[in-house]
Amino acid sequence: MTTENRRHAIGESTLAAITGGTGTAVVESLKDIAPDLAEWIISFSYGDVMSRPGLDLRSRQFATIAALTAMGTATPQLKVHIHGALNVGCQPPEIIEVILQMAVYAGFPAAINGLNVAREVFQERGVAVGT
Amino acid sequence: MTTENRRHAIGESTLAAITGGTGTAVVESLKDIAPDLAEWIISFSYGDVMSRPGLDLRSRQFATIAALTAMGTATPQLKVHIHGALNVGCQPPEIIEVILQMAVYAGFPAAINGLNVAREVFQERGVAVGT
Amino acid sequence: MTTENRRHAIGESTLAAITGGTGTAVVESLKDIAPDLAEWIISFSYGDVMSRPGLDLRSRQFATIAALTAMGTATPQLKVHIHGALNVGCQPPEIIEVILQMAVYAGFPAAINGLNVAREVFQERGVAVGT
Amino acid sequence: MTTENRRHAIGESTLAAITGGTGTAVVESLKDIAPDLAEWIISFSYGDVMSRPGLDLRSRQFATIAALTAMGTATPQLKVHIHGALNVGCQPPEIIEVILQMAVYAGFPAAINGLNVAREVFQERGVAVGT
Amino acid sequence: MTTENRRHAIGESTLAAITGGTGTAVVESLKDIAPDLAEWIISFSYGDVMSRPGLDLRSRQFATIAALTAMGTATPQLKVHIHGALNVGCQPPEIIEVILQMAVYAGFPAAINGLNVAREVFQERGVAVGT
Amino acid sequence: MTTENRRHAIGESTLAAITGGTGTAVVESLKDIAPDLAEWIISFSYGDVMSRPGLDLRSRQFATIAALTAMGTATPQLKVHIHGALNVGCQPPEIIEVILQMAVYAGFPAAINGLNVAREVFQERGVAVGT
Repeated sequence: MTTENRRHAIGESTLAAITGGTGTAVVESLKDIAPDLAEWIISFSYGDVMSRPGLDLRSRQFATIAALTAMGTATPQLKVHIHGALNVGCQPPEIIEVILQMAVYAGFPAAINGLNVAREVFQERGVAVGT
Repeated sequence: MTTENRRHAIGESTLAAITGGTGTAVVESLKDIAPDLAEWIISFSYGDVMSRPGLDLRSRQFATIAALTAMGTATPQLKVHIHGALNVGCQPPEIIEVILQMAVYAGFPAAINGLNVAREVFQERGVAVGT
Repeated sequence: MTTENRRHAIGESTLAAITGGTGTAVVESLKDIAPDLAEWIISFSYGDVMSRPGLDLRSRQFATIAALTAMGTATPQLKVHIHGALNVGCQPPEIIEVILQMAVYAGFPAAINGLNVAREVFQERGVAVGT
Repeated sequence: MTTENRRHAIGESTLAAITGGTGTAVVESLKDIAPDLAEWIISFSYGDVMSRPGLDLRSRQFATIAALTAMGTATPQLKVHIHGALNVGCQPPEIIEVILQMAVYAGFPAAINGLNVAREVFQERGVAVGT
Repeated sequence: MTTENRRHAIGESTLAAITGGTGTAVVESLKDIAPDLAEWIISFSYGDVMSRPGLDLRSRQFATIAALTAMGTATPQLKVHIHGALNVGCQPPEIIEVILQMAVYAGFPAAINGLNVAREVFQERGVAVGT
Repeated sequence: MTTENRRHAIGESTLAAITGGTGTAVVESLKDIAPDLAEWIISFSYGDVMSRPGLDLRSRQFATIAALTAMGTATPQLKVHIHGALNVGCQPPEIIEVILQMAVYAGFPAAINGLNVAREVFQERGVAVGT
């Protein structure tokens, strides 16, 4: 297998493992307007970065959720990655903890808005919402 | 012990456990201009939030490092929390992984600037810088 | 009354005074997913911070509106605090002035988006929209 | 013609040239709540700034699209300026390139969200969406 | 006096009233590289916006300090406007209150970094730093 | 040549063409702490993205300067890319125009801080600073 094929294959399996259907749907949705971005998400974001062995997938999802909650500009991606966190074994109360913690570092509005995204994901999956 | 004293005591010990001398120095430095903010850092940020049992301290530090790297507006705090991560058992290569991952979510400049803060902390502590 | 009860009581009355029904609704909405965040909004944000005597409530609301307009990531909270500003005696033309001023410091899109939130609040309350 | 009239006239024609109906609609929509902001958009943003001869209109639109995509807080304005870019001769694939490039500087979520705005504009105008 | 001269004159006197030497120094420093931006600061930012009668200068400075503290990307400008706040009669403890309040809306790092700018300004002017 | 070698080779030549010594120095500086990020800058940022044929290098640099000025969190990178803009044929007055334009979209502080970075670059290269 060529390097390029290997990056794609690793990325595709990592994307599937983390985001399941939600991430694949994002990639598919980009193919009409920017197929190369769709490919970079697979081969770079997931193939080169998210699949690296130096940090477990649970910690990676906590880090992503923290960042997207704090930034406050990436609601659709936060939703994908809360799904992703649940997919790799993060527990709902842990996800809530990460978002709550952002009240300290990025302010209460960031945490409140993040929690509303989490509630939406939990409801979609039939996960009990309470901590 | 009153609730207020308990919050302060828990906060103080959590602050010490996570940030060691660096966090205490920040709190002390604020006492001239805003002693109440210094107290809130202890009793709210660390007493109410960071000491919560629902997430381990390593994951909390990864989350904070991710958020501060992505935000790009809190260099002194990022430095404190990279120290904090090392204090609670995060390994240097894991810290680097979290910062690298931010290239995907917040762009390469955020990751590069975050790594430069990490290098500074590693050098201060005599930690080998290479991954 | 214990310190903790006092913080809660002061926070609850300050929250009610500033935000009226809108803030209480936010706090209630969080109780399913993160009851502690709901409590922190009351006891920390309003009990410890917003109730402090060193600055009048009108100035505090102008400051919050300015910050949320400039940040551009907290539309629901901006809406709550424009309600809050009206509740504590800020006049609609003054609120508009604060938002307009953000064109200078955070750019025209921030000001335009902030004004659209203000219009929505004014219309909900039957306040004449014109300056 | 007075200076003030000249600024307004240049601004109005530049606004029309760049944004066409979309920008004029924004200006009109602000006249109820903040007529002076509506006037500043014409006389300052377009009269003083966007009409300056030192940079061609295509480059100005690329710059605006890049900034608004990276900021991630100005979706309605990004939409106006993608229309604007098309109005002054930017080609759809060029607009996509600018947005894609933001993945490097502001992260993948910024680029993905920007592309979704671009797709919406392209569809409104019957422009083929593919690169 | 022409409209343009009037905007400049009002702007110049408002700039002087608010920022004193610090704002004038910024305007002067820009004249080599972008004399038109220097002029826009005078005629637009101060002539059109900050001189408007609908809000008192103290409230305007509180709003600016809130926004710049929350944004966290404009340290030199925050410094200028803390000077400006003191120049128009804001009291040091009030300025500290506004910055403290940003801990709630933009996170503790924003408030801490803002206070460090305030301390610097207070020390330059020989103002007692304590609240 | 393998795909991976081709990405690296194209990236390296694009990096050299755009940023000259300044970009290469950044890449070198990262090799101790995160050699893979150094490689991604070459093979992804420059090999996959910046070398794409759909937009000329001048427009790409204008877009990057616009974004980094508006974000306000990436001063070292803004400096590198103002060098880069000059390297690919952007004229100093054009660079100033892009930065000035950001006053409209991201506020005056962003534009002022961006111009100060530009002045620094112009002085390092002995470029006349005036517009």
